[in-house]
Amino acid sequence: MRLALSLGRRGQGNAAPNPAVGCVIVKDGRIVGRGWTQPGGRPHAETEALAQAGVAAQGATVYVTLEPCSHHGNTPPCADALIAAKVMRVVIALRDSDPRVDGAGIARLQKAGIAVETGICADEAQNDLSGFLLKVEQGRPLVTLKLASSFDGRIATGTGESQWITGPEARRFVHAMRARHDAVMVGGGTARQDDPSLTVRGMGATHQPARVVVSRRLDLPLLGNLARTAKDFPVLLCHSRDADPMMQNTWRDIGAQLLPCAARGSQLDPQDVLQQLGAHGLTRVFCEGGSALAAALIEADLVDRLVGFTAGVAIGAEGLPNIGALGLGKLSDAARFDLQRVRQIGPDICHEWSRAL
Amino acid sequence: MRLALSLGRRGQGNAAPNPAVGCVIVKDGRIVGRGWTQPGGRPHAETEALAQAGVAAQGATVYVTLEPCSHHGNTPPCADALIAAKVMRVVIALRDSDPRVDGAGIARLQKAGIAVETGICADEAQNDLSGFLLKVEQGRPLVTLKLASSFDGRIATGTGESQWITGPEARRFVHAMRARHDAVMVGGGTARQDDPSLTVRGMGATHQPARVVVSRRLDLPLLGNLARTAKDFPVLLCHSRDADPMMQNTWRDIGAQLLPCAARGSQLDPQDVLQQLGAHGLTRVFCEGGSALAAALIEADLVDRLVGFTAGVAIGAEGLPNIGALGLGKLSDAARFDLQRVRQIGPDICHEWSRAL
Repeated sequence: MRLALSLGRRGQGNAAPNPAVGCVIVKDGRIVGRGWTQPGGRPHAETEALAQAGVAAQGATVYVTLEPCSHHGNTPPCADALIAAKVMRVVIALRDSDPRVDGAGIARLQKAGIAVETGICADEAQNDLSGFLLKVEQGRPLVTLKLASSFDGRIATGTGESQWITGPEARRFVHAMRARHDAVMVGGGTARQDDPSLTVRGMGATHQPARVVVSRRLDLPLLGNLARTAKDFPVLLCHSRDADPMMQNTWRDIGAQLLPCAARGSQLDPQDVLQQLGAHGLTRVFCEGGSALAAALIEADLVDRLVGFTAGVAIGAEGLPNIGALGLGKLSDAARFDLQRVRQIGPDICHEWSRAL
Repeated sequence: MRLALSLGRRGQGNAAPNPAVGCVIVKDGRIVGRGWTQPGGRPHAETEALAQAGVAAQGATVYVTLEPCSHHGNTPPCADALIAAKVMRVVIALRDSDPRVDGAGIARLQKAGIAVETGICADEAQNDLSGFLLKVEQGRPLVTLKLASSFDGRIATGTGESQWITGPEARRFVHAMRARHDAVMVGGGTARQDDPSLTVRGMGATHQPARVVVSRRLDLPLLGNLARTAKDFPVLLCHSRDADPMMQNTWRDIGAQLLPCAARGSQLDPQDVLQQLGAHGLTRVFCEGGSALAAALIEADLVDRLVGFTAGVAIGAEGLPNIGALGLGKLSDAARFDLQRVRQIGPDICHEWSRAL
């Protein structure tokens, strides 16, 4: 199952709106098929593994990280394919909470006389598939918030200088993290200040995640890197309905996709922004700030994972904070995160946290 | 030598103004004597080890982390004691840069026909003895700046709530760190806001470091924990010469020692504060903030080691920053620190840095 989980993770960032599933078929102690969700979400992992196994699938044990689908979508149900291949036993990490499946895949297999075991490495599968599960259960993608800061939590000097606080190793790491998400997201301020392209670079041939900018007024530079590359890789702009119609038209002409979202006060409602991104098919969003968007997401309790890169540099209180104002009353009300991992990356540290339960 | 270094560290925080030295005497492959600088700086490590070894010291090899002294201070020179004990060979990690020694100890041993080797584990010894060496070479103690912050570098909420950001494990760790320094230092704002006692607690019987408060105007609470315990463990108050004379007298009566320091603008000059503490005999100072004192020390390039405890909690930009305003112009001018170690401590992370060379 661990191999299946590891194969499944290969599809992360490139399977949406489908889950990035992994599948291993074992016959007589020998691996006869391996598969994972292919780019764009199809073919499914089981289809891939069955194709590799061929007739060897007969009487084999299938390890799959998510319950095989039972419904006719764009592909015939995987449960049927497993039955047709005459496998003997199916071991499943996690039941699929998608209402179109939700146990129906398991029931179908069992009805065909196939032994089914579930719950093997369920926590790991839950973790790996949390983007898909959140979208199914709450309609929104998983949000990983990454902040690269100085020792004192600043993402830029008072004059806006931010290149570079962390070292090249950390920046390379960020590109690898981007590649495992469906989209990279920043706020309008960061798009204006840093003119980022938000692409994955230096990782060899890889798919490019969508670029998302959250900007209520759509007052974004029309001559920047995002505008220039909007026809090459998707650019999604979350804006309020009252954003300047000329800007809306111009960005549409440039090649961006516009997602009108509900506003709340002077900002977009982060909950609605994520619902729109979920409806657009995104399951894993990697947010890279800035301060205001980070604060809005934390305040709305929408940050599932928090990744900090911290450099051994002191910028001082005039610098731009990594997290903006949160309107926090008492310390006991503050958003808490549990440490998952901490390590050295080049001269910096990388610390990964997940929402405290 | 590694054993000698480890023994030497036992004296850290309790040897000032002397160096915390370690010494091991080996005869025929057997350890016959171990010693380290005793509380208050005397007896010296060599004296202790020689006393343990007795006649076995004759013909033995002595490992010592710092060049044995050659001058008559409060104790007769250790070099003479080693000669009198008829040791065969002395292995020294680091030459003593104290002008009263500075090679004279080595010369004395060699003149008596004892083989001397130097430079074994010199980097480690340099690190362990850096407080003593800084005091000898620059007249100031080593400064370790410890800041316990939220993920976003805040040491308190906007309303001043700071208990607790980090967990009990991190706080216990801080007490162990305090015990290895000659003094614990805070700024006046922290003394007023937190009413700390700055003692070492929960570590079993241990010596108490001096408590230092840096407060230009001496406007410190007379009914707080520091005032209450000033007669039990030393309290040193660094203030400007124009601080209210009545406050000066009152604090003196309470039992504090007053150190008048030069002012620079509205603050005390951190360089002079440390010179005064060095002149007072301190070699290792553990600074625990707050923002203003941390910023003043960093700006003056007086922070030798930086220790961060970071909790997985978001306080937001209204919170108190761990480092105050630094007046930084360009990012390339920012103070940089090299990572020495990072690890998990309870639910938090602890990252230790040293001034970049």
